[in-house]
Amino acid sequence: MKVILDAFGGDNSPLEVIKGAYQAVCKDPSIEVILCGNREIIEKVISENGLSHKSFSVKHCTEKIEGDDDPIKAVKTKKDSSIIVGLNLLKEEGGDVFISAGNTGALFTASNLILKRIKGIKRSALAAYLPTKKGPKLILDAGANVTLSAEYLNQLAMMGSTYIEADKGIKKPSVGLINIGAEATKGTEALVEAYKIMSENPEINFKGNCEPRYILDGEFDVLVCDGFTGNIVIKTIEGVSKTLMSGIKGVMYKSLLTKICALGLKKGMYEFKKQFDYKEYGGTPIIGLKKPVIKAHGSSDAKAFMNAILTSRSYVKSDIIAGIERKMNVE
Amino acid sequence: MKVILDAFGGDNSPLEVIKGAYQAVCKDPSIEVILCGNREIIEKVISENGLSHKSFSVKHCTEKIEGDDDPIKAVKTKKDSSIIVGLNLLKEEGGDVFISAGNTGALFTASNLILKRIKGIKRSALAAYLPTKKGPKLILDAGANVTLSAEYLNQLAMMGSTYIEADKGIKKPSVGLINIGAEATKGTEALVEAYKIMSENPEINFKGNCEPRYILDGEFDVLVCDGFTGNIVIKTIEGVSKTLMSGIKGVMYKSLLTKICALGLKKGMYEFKKQFDYKEYGGTPIIGLKKPVIKAHGSSDAKAFMNAILTSRSYVKSDIIAGIERKMNVE
Repeated sequence: MKVILDAFGGDNSPLEVIKGAYQAVCKDPSIEVILCGNREIIEKVISENGLSHKSFSVKHCTEKIEGDDDPIKAVKTKKDSSIIVGLNLLKEEGGDVFISAGNTGALFTASNLILKRIKGIKRSALAAYLPTKKGPKLILDAGANVTLSAEYLNQLAMMGSTYIEADKGIKKPSVGLINIGAEATKGTEALVEAYKIMSENPEINFKGNCEPRYILDGEFDVLVCDGFTGNIVIKTIEGVSKTLMSGIKGVMYKSLLTKICALGLKKGMYEFKKQFDYKEYGGTPIIGLKKPVIKAHGSSDAKAFMNAILTSRSYVKSDIIAGIERKMNVE
Repeated sequence: MKVILDAFGGDNSPLEVIKGAYQAVCKDPSIEVILCGNREIIEKVISENGLSHKSFSVKHCTEKIEGDDDPIKAVKTKKDSSIIVGLNLLKEEGGDVFISAGNTGALFTASNLILKRIKGIKRSALAAYLPTKKGPKLILDAGANVTLSAEYLNQLAMMGSTYIEADKGIKKPSVGLINIGAEATKGTEALVEAYKIMSENPEINFKGNCEPRYILDGEFDVLVCDGFTGNIVIKTIEGVSKTLMSGIKGVMYKSLLTKICALGLKKGMYEFKKQFDYKEYGGTPIIGLKKPVIKAHGSSDAKAFMNAILTSRSYVKSDIIAGIERKMNVE
């Protein structure tokens, strides 16, 4: 598998990106990585950190889209940026997947422009795994489209179902619509209509609305919402987890006695935290496109990049894109 | 102060409602409570549980709005329900505040119909306190209006600022707009416009967008959003807190050793949990109305009802409603 990697995306690029790529190719020798970005800098980082590997190659380009660049403007003007060059390489069959931790809006806009969507798909979307009590579950749209009509939400349900079935082997994945109440009449007009359409769609296993207080219970395999709501949910989960875990750390480190007591809980706490660590989950695929693209978290470290590369194998090797195409033609 | 209390609202009514009222009048002898509901049942609960108190009186009515009743239909047809009778009593100056843990939609609709809004206020809203690292902060709308225009969001910012200033003595409270990014151009059209209007409003101390991952840091005194977003945020916080706290409990109770270690952390954990316990915060006021109405959580127990009654004193005694009136006339 050939991974095209944006070496200049994310807060910790290029060092952590290259470190993560190095760890991934060491773990799986069948992976080749094409690092997109300024050749001189990449080679310097590789040699200074002893990260040289025969599975690495470089696709040189001179520009970089910054995190705070306006996405549409950046895509139009920075033609020699690592995102645009990498996506063009993917389009021209120079690799199997493109991974970037760069500007989400620019990556999303450029992916849609360069790679195009699967026939029949009206909106592509970010599909993120959420850690739950019953393992990782998919939430989409995680932040790409601020608003979505009922029809588009219904398409997301079909794409998400196909994705998690192929990626995790979940048969007939259950689908929930994120909403402020369980009743079919709750929420915005788009949600009320989406509830109706999804109830009547034989291609999905729709189980009704999911109130956010039950998301982490993991009863739904696929959670559907517009990108605004999805992003609000994900960022709220992140914030609450961080606040509570740091508060509990504070309780444990309060005195010598509590520190000693905390020692006995260390292993259990480590395992519990690991279960809710996004770094274990790899990147977030953009689904609905004709080729696989994965968005890594902007603050990814080497471990997160390694996992993004390793977990991308199933998106590449499985039948996900062809499966979505088939579902669209059934309609 | 005379509190009109819906004795038949919430999952644990009427027993926990009356218990909570009893605890409140024992704590503050200046409070009188008028219990709205079926006299026979109320008197039976009082006598069977030894809750008789000279500060109690009963406003008899025969009907009850159920949690799953359609709000608008219920308000139209159940004229002798505890919510409608209680609100009418408040309107006729038979008390100073109405508190109910009943059907939120019905309470909200009936409050607007019976009590009317303050002159100039286009939408009333639920203003909930969120526990944060820097103490309780206000989020509004917490779930009453699914969508809100930029102009209405701006009104919410003014009402929320007036409320928290009067209730908690916070001078020039900082205002944040809940959004998926910090930049002024992020989010829905309504949010982009609201950012602009609020930036130019001299009546509020607008500090920009607040991403949900920073909500619990408590940097903003007032968080403004539409009711859909507010409800999603609150319910996500509830769900994540519950999942994490029960997971940590699981770690602590795993073995004899961990149980012993957990003992040493008990006090700290108790204090930490107390900081994030909604029951400490009392009810959620509906603001924008001509009279004070407070929504208690549907699953409130006696302690939550007691706190809802005790914390309602500041809404009644302070200058909040007059303050909002003045702010509206300045415009």
